[in-house]
Amino acid sequence: MRRLRIIGIGAGNPDHLTLQAVAALNTLDVVFLPDKGSEKGALRALREEICRRHVTRPDIRMVPLAVPKRAEAGNDYRGAVDDWHAALAEAYERLFRDHLAEGETGGLLVWGDPALYDSTLRIVEAVCARGLALDYDVIPGISSVQALAASHRLVLNGIGESVLVTTGRRLAQEGFPQNAGSVVAMLDGEQAFAAIDPAGLEIWWGAYLGAETEILASGPLAEVSEEIRRRRAEARAAHGWIMDTYLLRRSR
Amino acid sequence: MRRLRIIGIGAGNPDHLTLQAVAALNTLDVVFLPDKGSEKGALRALREEICRRHVTRPDIRMVPLAVPKRAEAGNDYRGAVDDWHAALAEAYERLFRDHLAEGETGGLLVWGDPALYDSTLRIVEAVCARGLALDYDVIPGISSVQALAASHRLVLNGIGESVLVTTGRRLAQEGFPQNAGSVVAMLDGEQAFAAIDPAGLEIWWGAYLGAETEILASGPLAEVSEEIRRRRAEARAAHGWIMDTYLLRRSR
Repeated sequence: MRRLRIIGIGAGNPDHLTLQAVAALNTLDVVFLPDKGSEKGALRALREEICRRHVTRPDIRMVPLAVPKRAEAGNDYRGAVDDWHAALAEAYERLFRDHLAEGETGGLLVWGDPALYDSTLRIVEAVCARGLALDYDVIPGISSVQALAASHRLVLNGIGESVLVTTGRRLAQEGFPQNAGSVVAMLDGEQAFAAIDPAGLEIWWGAYLGAETEILASGPLAEVSEEIRRRRAEARAAHGWIMDTYLLRRSR
Repeated sequence: MRRLRIIGIGAGNPDHLTLQAVAALNTLDVVFLPDKGSEKGALRALREEICRRHVTRPDIRMVPLAVPKRAEAGNDYRGAVDDWHAALAEAYERLFRDHLAEGETGGLLVWGDPALYDSTLRIVEAVCARGLALDYDVIPGISSVQALAASHRLVLNGIGESVLVTTGRRLAQEGFPQNAGSVVAMLDGEQAFAAIDPAGLEIWWGAYLGAETEILASGPLAEVSEEIRRRRAEARAAHGWIMDTYLLRRSR
């Protein structure tokens, strides 16, 4: 039996790592390091820094993992994601067979929390479904939503109210929901906040959360929407990539 | 100026503590330890264990904080909570004035994450509004939702779908929402999962998440609802208290 640990490493600050994650890192024979291409170089460097700082075992093996690029989703988002997961499952299975011996423990380091808008768990399930026997566990990590809330000193929920965590795609399609007090948008490459009716809404936005390059902005959506779009575009141009998230809430 | 740090300490496993939280603990002159009465003795013990294990400063002061009990909410949940927060703000202000000198740093250790269904940030805001100058920051922590997901090896969201984080009270009133793929219920003292139509729903439930006493159950809601109610009642009787949370999702 091969053993695999899926370890949440937090949202961009190396000190988001939990003691449980540090202990898990030190049970690994192999770390698999996905390579998503140059635009995420800063993230890869941070992952490597985490290993350098916290892995005490001198003979740990670092194995790079080439991540196939996802096709443009077009009108079939779900289908494009399914195809991508199938390609990833095949790549991961080959990697585990080649680089993780029976009885060894491998690790996958996941940005944020493996439970929130991350594919790793689904891919590992698909690898198991392909017939590879894997005993795996999950270590939770600080998500970008939590880093956003902490930096803005924000409680995500209103008193007795609910919070909808959703995608930019859904927010743009569905608008601000009737049944949720607050909405957190993730995976929003198209700035859905600028596409919905801003009347009566406030926004708390953050990019590169937890990192030294963190940027924050907040205020009535109608007033700050343009500023956020501008700062987002400038930061993206300067860094070559961006990761951001935000919370929307009706003004009181 | 007095300085205050609001530190998320995770959901019941002392190793949920982040490196950022450990570093923050060691900047404190004073830790304020709320005392919510004997039913939460196990939680208080864990909070004290965290300080014992990780605080290296020998002269740190531990100051107990008597937490006033919240009145039964009746029909005015929001009003009862507002009154309770006002009483807490008064108690906290007196405590800070008496035990935290100008220039010193105090700490409040919060279960889970300060951003999710926790009152601490609102109370600190109310203390500032009463006129006490406080410079405060927030350190995120692993929430019980994340511990639940990790223990069940669960991704909270379906692919491209949203997650509604809500209270047991709202879930019982509103039923399973149309616009969310998954629902997480928190603060559910009345087992709302047993009050809604179970047809087509699956549940992933956990109590004492992250602790050694953790209990998990999952399956089609119609089949496991009774078992969860029974195990919850037994565990509550055995421990004298219970904290639990769960995720509901439509079966595929």
